[in-house]
Amino acid sequence: MDYFEASLKRHRETRGKIEVRSRMRLDSVDDLSLAYTPGVARPCEEIANNPAAAWDLTWKGRTVAVVSDGSAVLGLGNLGGLASLPVMEGKAALFREFGGVDAVPVVLATQDEDEIIQAVRAIAPTFGGINLEDISAPRCFRIEAALQDLGIPVLHDDQHGTAIVLLAALMNATRITGVSMSNLSVVINGAGAAGHAIARMLCCQDEDDRCIPVGKVRICDSKGIIAPSRAGLDEYKQRLARWTNPEDEQGDLRAALRGAHAFIGVSKGNLLTGDDIRCMAKDSIVLAMANPTPEIMPAEAEAAGARIIGTGRSDFPNQVNNVLAFPGLFRGALAARAVKFTTAMKFAAVEAIAAAAGEPSPKRILPAAFDRSVAVSVADRVAEAARQSGACL
Amino acid sequence: MDYFEASLKRHRETRGKIEVRSRMRLDSVDDLSLAYTPGVARPCEEIANNPAAAWDLTWKGRTVAVVSDGSAVLGLGNLGGLASLPVMEGKAALFREFGGVDAVPVVLATQDEDEIIQAVRAIAPTFGGINLEDISAPRCFRIEAALQDLGIPVLHDDQHGTAIVLLAALMNATRITGVSMSNLSVVINGAGAAGHAIARMLCCQDEDDRCIPVGKVRICDSKGIIAPSRAGLDEYKQRLARWTNPEDEQGDLRAALRGAHAFIGVSKGNLLTGDDIRCMAKDSIVLAMANPTPEIMPAEAEAAGARIIGTGRSDFPNQVNNVLAFPGLFRGALAARAVKFTTAMKFAAVEAIAAAAGEPSPKRILPAAFDRSVAVSVADRVAEAARQSGACL
Repeated sequence: MDYFEASLKRHRETRGKIEVRSRMRLDSVDDLSLAYTPGVARPCEEIANNPAAAWDLTWKGRTVAVVSDGSAVLGLGNLGGLASLPVMEGKAALFREFGGVDAVPVVLATQDEDEIIQAVRAIAPTFGGINLEDISAPRCFRIEAALQDLGIPVLHDDQHGTAIVLLAALMNATRITGVSMSNLSVVINGAGAAGHAIARMLCCQDEDDRCIPVGKVRICDSKGIIAPSRAGLDEYKQRLARWTNPEDEQGDLRAALRGAHAFIGVSKGNLLTGDDIRCMAKDSIVLAMANPTPEIMPAEAEAAGARIIGTGRSDFPNQVNNVLAFPGLFRGALAARAVKFTTAMKFAAVEAIAAAAGEPSPKRILPAAFDRSVAVSVADRVAEAARQSGACL
Repeated sequence: MDYFEASLKRHRETRGKIEVRSRMRLDSVDDLSLAYTPGVARPCEEIANNPAAAWDLTWKGRTVAVVSDGSAVLGLGNLGGLASLPVMEGKAALFREFGGVDAVPVVLATQDEDEIIQAVRAIAPTFGGINLEDISAPRCFRIEAALQDLGIPVLHDDQHGTAIVLLAALMNATRITGVSMSNLSVVINGAGAAGHAIARMLCCQDEDDRCIPVGKVRICDSKGIIAPSRAGLDEYKQRLARWTNPEDEQGDLRAALRGAHAFIGVSKGNLLTGDDIRCMAKDSIVLAMANPTPEIMPAEAEAAGARIIGTGRSDFPNQVNNVLAFPGLFRGALAARAVKFTTAMKFAAVEAIAAAAGEPSPKRILPAAFDRSVAVSVADRVAEAARQSGACL
């Protein structure tokens, strides 16, 4: 099937993927008087007196904005806000179908960091959460950080959604290979949004929340291993160097891979060869997320000795798809009325997704992207973590 | 029925009035590949190459934002953005039910004019039109004017929606009383959003579009007739004075009413007495829009000689309800892909609403607020006017 032309055709037929419906009857004068004037004055006054009532009396408590400036759309690059709208609508449809969360795409006319922050702050009262999407690194880090005081959970899904599903995959893979997380040597290739979030969850010591203790992590960009003494690192890569590589190990990707147990690729297609895999430890784990062409094709990785292989694609086993994470993450956060996403909530999602796979096997380290029970389990665990953290309304 | 408590209860039951639904099936891997990655890349690229394609491939061409800062919520005053959300949701539900238009409430965290303008500009690519709502005068005038270059129609409904329905009512009322519009003497009481827009449509000579030629218009605020030589007028009232009262007539509301054929109240309840009506011309027209208590109760006005009486209330005849206007206005503008609302489009709506009442009678100068055929007629006429004006994509 040619997904591209078929998708264009289907979009034309439906004129987009989502619509807004009324939940109240509007069939009589009485209905109109309850939904609109004069009756609506009463819920307005109730909220004016007690803002938290908005979570009960409006869509706020079940609705998320999916906000993008279109600066990093899928693998296509900077297409601008308008051209990213089909992705944001798709995400909104998935939010509703998988998480029972109402979601509204909001694509922006600006790519200025401060203007993006200001726009999100301005519209925030409308929503119970903000999913930032397809915003390029390193801009996404500052934008997300600047919005953590809104009083509603704000999360850049290309960072955390992807990191959460990848870590669930990695945890289950280690249950098969038998190398525990605390002994695991992991190489992340790609220091963008997802790579940064994975490194953060595995290594970060300067946050108030826990991380997964993991044996060794190296993160590489196109110039090789990110190390404290490497020249020309921006503030975010300096942070990565500090988190992952206090030993100041230098070298290229191949040097990093030598003896490593796991490779996490969030970079570019066709980057690894069989020789790269062969220099890794025996029974290696290869999660090659580049889309549509993975860093190495599964058959080649397997022939070179990789034991467990995952990609972003639905036509290979072990699809790492963040639809496993974001619907449940926000559903849980909304249910708990969380004021932000804590690291504990993200780890709760990792554990819920890993558990939802059941007993893992080499071709099934994750639940199927279509398993609609996953979002419910994730939401329950995330809400529980939120309540325990106390960061709730 | 106690609309207020019943409304609160119904809002609690439904947790707000609108929801977002998927229009595409998401039941298989193929569905996901068409609605989301990888297929969605194709409509994104199509829009990047040709922005107008967004009207066909996304919800943009059928979706309006209902934006408010909550500075003038119903008759309740300045409740702020969050507390205005029930009204904006109600409006969104009416947009969908009456106009077949998808609408998204957007309530703002700011009441700063420049920040409001900037926020609307930032989110505009998402939508095919912007309905500004419940923004206080005179701020609403500058905000609306500053957003006319967005390339999508932007309209402050408290101004134009209300003015359009009132003028349709007035036109049909004159068909009964027999005093033609060109001979009519009209008093508008209230120089806020609606009063301003009515005066503009009746008198404005410094716009590029036509107005309804009307015999005489006086507009009053709480200090009496607005006149060029009156001290302390802001720029908007100076404009009203210029438009309506080049003769520089001074006096109070009673002075303005003397001999007038029609009173349009967009002010406060219980403002007029029977004596005020008796000083007007015989068979007067009284459109008393203050809510919930009109400027004069219908029975009192009728006893004092008024021939035709309309209010904003559903429990009296001749309800002037802007649900007759806004769903069709935006439906028509979206159908024509209008880049703005022209005065000709607004007049087309006036004529369509007036015509939809059929042969008018004293108790029926407007179609019923529940007549769902009205929005279709309005939309057809508005789209036709938009196409004739050439202000379309």
